[in-house]
Amino acid sequence: MSSTGFNTLEEFKKFREKMNEEILNRGTLNTKRFWALDGAVYKDGALDSKTKELMGLVASMVLRCDDCITYHMIRCAELNVTDEEFFEAFDVALIVGGSIVIPHLRRAVNTLLEIRRMQLNGESISI
Amino acid sequence: MSSTGFNTLEEFKKFREKMNEEILNRGTLNTKRFWALDGAVYKDGALDSKTKELMGLVASMVLRCDDCITYHMIRCAELNVTDEEFFEAFDVALIVGGSIVIPHLRRAVNTLLEIRRMQLNGESISI
Amino acid sequence: MSSTGFNTLEEFKKFREKMNEEILNRGTLNTKRFWALDGAVYKDGALDSKTKELMGLVASMVLRCDDCITYHMIRCAELNVTDEEFFEAFDVALIVGGSIVIPHLRRAVNTLLEIRRMQLNGESISI
Amino acid sequence: MSSTGFNTLEEFKKFREKMNEEILNRGTLNTKRFWALDGAVYKDGALDSKTKELMGLVASMVLRCDDCITYHMIRCAELNVTDEEFFEAFDVALIVGGSIVIPHLRRAVNTLLEIRRMQLNGESISI
Amino acid sequence: MSSTGFNTLEEFKKFREKMNEEILNRGTLNTKRFWALDGAVYKDGALDSKTKELMGLVASMVLRCDDCITYHMIRCAELNVTDEEFFEAFDVALIVGGSIVIPHLRRAVNTLLEIRRMQLNGESISI
Amino acid sequence: MSSTGFNTLEEFKKFREKMNEEILNRGTLNTKRFWALDGAVYKDGALDSKTKELMGLVASMVLRCDDCITYHMIRCAELNVTDEEFFEAFDVALIVGGSIVIPHLRRAVNTLLEIRRMQLNGESISI
Repeated sequence: MSSTGFNTLEEFKKFREKMNEEILNRGTLNTKRFWALDGAVYKDGALDSKTKELMGLVASMVLRCDDCITYHMIRCAELNVTDEEFFEAFDVALIVGGSIVIPHLRRAVNTLLEIRRMQLNGESISI
Repeated sequence: MSSTGFNTLEEFKKFREKMNEEILNRGTLNTKRFWALDGAVYKDGALDSKTKELMGLVASMVLRCDDCITYHMIRCAELNVTDEEFFEAFDVALIVGGSIVIPHLRRAVNTLLEIRRMQLNGESISI
Repeated sequence: MSSTGFNTLEEFKKFREKMNEEILNRGTLNTKRFWALDGAVYKDGALDSKTKELMGLVASMVLRCDDCITYHMIRCAELNVTDEEFFEAFDVALIVGGSIVIPHLRRAVNTLLEIRRMQLNGESISI
Repeated sequence: MSSTGFNTLEEFKKFREKMNEEILNRGTLNTKRFWALDGAVYKDGALDSKTKELMGLVASMVLRCDDCITYHMIRCAELNVTDEEFFEAFDVALIVGGSIVIPHLRRAVNTLLEIRRMQLNGESISI
Repeated sequence: MSSTGFNTLEEFKKFREKMNEEILNRGTLNTKRFWALDGAVYKDGALDSKTKELMGLVASMVLRCDDCITYHMIRCAELNVTDEEFFEAFDVALIVGGSIVIPHLRRAVNTLLEIRRMQLNGESISI
Repeated sequence: MSSTGFNTLEEFKKFREKMNEEILNRGTLNTKRFWALDGAVYKDGALDSKTKELMGLVASMVLRCDDCITYHMIRCAELNVTDEEFFEAFDVALIVGGSIVIPHLRRAVNTLLEIRRMQLNGESISI
């Protein structure tokens, strides 16, 4: 179980893609603008993309959003975040957010195992 | 997946009904009073019921509660909220609550598709 | 005390204006875009501006942000929201968000008293 | 500083009382019912009032509401909660809620010092 | 459905155990220390373990974490919390946290039914 | 106003220091362990201290804790985070957490101005 309600990363990615398409087709101009902005803030700038995705990951953990955690973990893995770096990021989320973060940490570690399995098998994790 | 852990609106409604009954049978007098009050605040008054259900929907989205979102979407649909109105309400929730709301928005749009499908088929959505 | 740390609406408005200016001068293009989007979603559309500001008010109350509550109350008052309508909106926030909302409700009522006083005196509340 | 925006417990109590009166005078029947219910759930029952006030305190700390923390601390002190018990309750809030609770813990300890000072001086803390 | 994504308490306990092991094997020294501390704060002290687990339960309900609720309910049941006590604790969570707690209350009552069924059958609920 | 209830960084630092001392003197062994752990997770490791403090800053912004924001901003400034980096971190917090973050962003920018003023004057900001 990589995240709430999804059994695999593949399932998560399919539902996400299908619904994003639906939202961008039917949403208002403001919805589309929000989507564009959400992509833009993580681009390389004064801070590099890896640092920003790690920030996004920790923010998602303390706000306890499994889908957001999964998304930022995939992005981090694409940017070569190591297991050691992941676990130190988890520690920051855990101390800031408290034990209430633990169930999400369990699912995050499960997601990490799945990401590493896919990478070992040469499967694309890209999102 | 209309909401956390439920595959269909029907499943959501069945679990909700069964558990509400259990709670009202076994809960205290205070529990029952809370339930009554929760129904009462959405009735027509100085503000009409539709406006109040839309407020309840946006509040549920920024607090990120899928079951609450599903409930208020059904009530809104019963009160003839249009797709255009739903998407503008989603925009308010999105800007106030941020990208952390997006996974719930995806599930809300999926619920909207299911509601419209049921309405087209002449099935009752009432809750 | 109209909101956290401010003694009057005037004080709130001055700090808000000064800091908004600082942020828009120094922030990134993405910051400016977020600001523009935040203004755009409350404009008249399928739902009118009054309904959207009431949604913004209830969302701010359940998320417990005094400055946001003050802002949306001023906007609501400019759009002729009556005391009766305010109190029914407060009830929705109270039932959704629970007793944890009460301290913010106390400050909101204090703000309402100040807004009505200013309106009676013919002072501008506009923001 | 006993809590957000208040310099003393006396100030907190005065503002609270004045605004409660305003709310109960002007609020709807539903507002009054919520207020009554909020008092009722902390009464002695299968669990005693002290246990319930301690629960209310921990809930207020993890939700990070200074006024709510102050209120439940006064009630706990009236029910003879000792310093040792307060600090163990603080530990539960700290581990569940994380370091984000710390600023509220600092203010809670300040409030505790003020409560003990008043009790030593034979001043009433009752609320 | 005893909690998010799990169909039975057994499923919850298995995933929890497996992932805890993974985390303690791979996490940092700080992760392990957090885990130890999380166990330590609920031990008998000035306040007994039952009171602390009830506090943990109410904190988990207002923060709306199903897995945390399930965990503290099991611990409470092991410490002989009665149905009457559970429902009074639920009332405190409901009034503090608001109607947004209701979906979690429904799942908590479902978990309570499962716990009582297991206890009647002489099955171990221990965690 | 650098943060909730404090008029200057100096005031914030004094209250923080005094109350930390009180807490560490009177708190339990578990309280002290939490404090130690809270320091430890931000040390250089696989990720450097600057990255971790930036994570702590963004986490504090989306959780909307002014004192925590002030603390991490001081630490970031000590680690030579530039204005450009601060504003990109603010953008991540803003998009993840939504407009509800804006009042905290205003106070954060005010704090940044104060930090830069102190650094220009050769005053110590260290915490």
